[in-house]
Amino acid sequence: MIIIQSDDLRSKFINILLKNSFDKNDAELCADIFTENTLTGVASHGVNKFRSFIKMVQNNYVKPKAKPIKLNSFNALEQWDGNFGSGPNNAWLITERAIELAKQYGTGCVALKNTNHWMRGGTYGWKAAETGFIFICWANTIPNLPPWGSKEARTGNNPIIFAVPKKDGPVVLDMALSQFSYGKLDTYKKAGEKLPFPGGYNSDNKLTDDPSEIIESFRPLPIGLWKGSGLSLMLDLIASILSDGNPTFKLSKTEVDTGMSQVFIAVDPEKFFSKDEINNLVEQIISNFKSAEPIDNNVDILFPGERAKRTKEEYLKNGIPIDELVWEKINSIL
Amino acid sequence: MIIIQSDDLRSKFINILLKNSFDKNDAELCADIFTENTLTGVASHGVNKFRSFIKMVQNNYVKPKAKPIKLNSFNALEQWDGNFGSGPNNAWLITERAIELAKQYGTGCVALKNTNHWMRGGTYGWKAAETGFIFICWANTIPNLPPWGSKEARTGNNPIIFAVPKKDGPVVLDMALSQFSYGKLDTYKKAGEKLPFPGGYNSDNKLTDDPSEIIESFRPLPIGLWKGSGLSLMLDLIASILSDGNPTFKLSKTEVDTGMSQVFIAVDPEKFFSKDEINNLVEQIISNFKSAEPIDNNVDILFPGERAKRTKEEYLKNGIPIDELVWEKINSIL
Repeated sequence: MIIIQSDDLRSKFINILLKNSFDKNDAELCADIFTENTLTGVASHGVNKFRSFIKMVQNNYVKPKAKPIKLNSFNALEQWDGNFGSGPNNAWLITERAIELAKQYGTGCVALKNTNHWMRGGTYGWKAAETGFIFICWANTIPNLPPWGSKEARTGNNPIIFAVPKKDGPVVLDMALSQFSYGKLDTYKKAGEKLPFPGGYNSDNKLTDDPSEIIESFRPLPIGLWKGSGLSLMLDLIASILSDGNPTFKLSKTEVDTGMSQVFIAVDPEKFFSKDEINNLVEQIISNFKSAEPIDNNVDILFPGERAKRTKEEYLKNGIPIDELVWEKINSIL
Repeated sequence: MIIIQSDDLRSKFINILLKNSFDKNDAELCADIFTENTLTGVASHGVNKFRSFIKMVQNNYVKPKAKPIKLNSFNALEQWDGNFGSGPNNAWLITERAIELAKQYGTGCVALKNTNHWMRGGTYGWKAAETGFIFICWANTIPNLPPWGSKEARTGNNPIIFAVPKKDGPVVLDMALSQFSYGKLDTYKKAGEKLPFPGGYNSDNKLTDDPSEIIESFRPLPIGLWKGSGLSLMLDLIASILSDGNPTFKLSKTEVDTGMSQVFIAVDPEKFFSKDEINNLVEQIISNFKSAEPIDNNVDILFPGERAKRTKEEYLKNGIPIDELVWEKINSIL
């Protein structure tokens, strides 16, 4: 690991994006998101993913100059086309659009088709909640999760995000629908470790905690078993209906990860209650949750988003540890 | 088991509700919901729960003449007070209200406080989707699920429902956030069976598939382990913020289950697309999901809501099997 300061990381991203046909404002926004994702401890959707993102740009799967356009609107409901632009930029703009609708109507729902990977979905939840909004968003993915009862990956480990404002840092749940992501499985595999819980089926239809077996069988467990399988289907249905975009089955497993559908819902609680009233309630609920009797007195009970906040504070102070090979490859991007 | 026809069950419910201070229309709606829940195979939130529902009425926890009233509204966002009326009646009316808002604004979000148990949440998803709407709703519950890392039940197994229209019967996911409900644990326990998957921790902090141990420890597993624990917190936060109602920690574990908070979100996809366009897409996605290669060729891959539809068709044709003791107790209600 080498240590890079957040500002240096951001500048590096901007320079590379500018060289790859991004306009200045778009490059800055995209760099902000990749930097934020890395700062909050999600390097897998930050610095570690940047090189493959640039390759998508260079191969014209991600179109750096494309902008999302509105196709349909009816008061608080809108449908947009992402035109295969940068996933993070598109998601950020559509988050802002959902917030605008919530300002105007109390709540707003925007569906987006033909977009690209948004990297860390939690970033859009953070943005909305820091602005005072309750926020829910989700994306569909390539087929990488078997429907319950099947051994064939036909539905997605679709990420869903729930965000709620809190004064000293929002509460944000950012979860994919497989119990362990392929990234996490790979991390355990490389460390030669077993998973802490069974994470999928092996090729003999047995539950296993061996990450290699799950990577091979392509059969990770959905969260909640049959429940997560059903939830995956629902999120895919709603995203593709409202956006008129690709459902998971049209997103190929074998080709590149592009053209997915997303939904963004914002609600403005300050239409009825003051910031202080909302914050007091949130603080009470969080405090009650965190003070539940722990199994292990040395392990804190965390609320969703708490670890990200801590990591960001630490990395802003001490710099961000980055895998040397990752950094080397980023520096070699033309 | 004895066999009761759906119409007879409904009449029985209506008669008892009328004797317990329900007005005619309210009694009919409430009876419709209890009948529908039973017909779709969810007796645990239908006929099996009716006697305890009437006890709640007789003890004045459920107020049969109370109506929900609107406290705040801002275009597509509303906040209502359930006034401790009948949970099923309140949830049905608020579902209709969310649908009205979606008609007017494309989407609508209604939060409800001080309501009572809605029984089977899926019923409201069914109603909305059968009318052509995409629908999401959830409720908080008494503290009955430990936050991840804790051994103390401080958050809820909050049910959440996602519903999507389909011409020959909608797609509806109705899931609580514990892997197995206490009802299910009890069913396995009474049958002397182990759970098919680990369902919670025992009092020695070990994962167990023994339903008795989980009932004793009060430590069921959240779906997705740490993910479901986080989702439970998010749903509680959003429901109590938007409704200004009780969060889970104010809903006592020891007293009766009353005064919870709920959220209802409707979206009208027909603002942009025709019924046929929507249905074609839904059928394609469902067909792809169901045709995934099964683990066991004798076990169908089902979409959420498929079993309920089959059960209802069967029960309408052949009558509903009802536990004799349950029926006897209902007949003894004064």
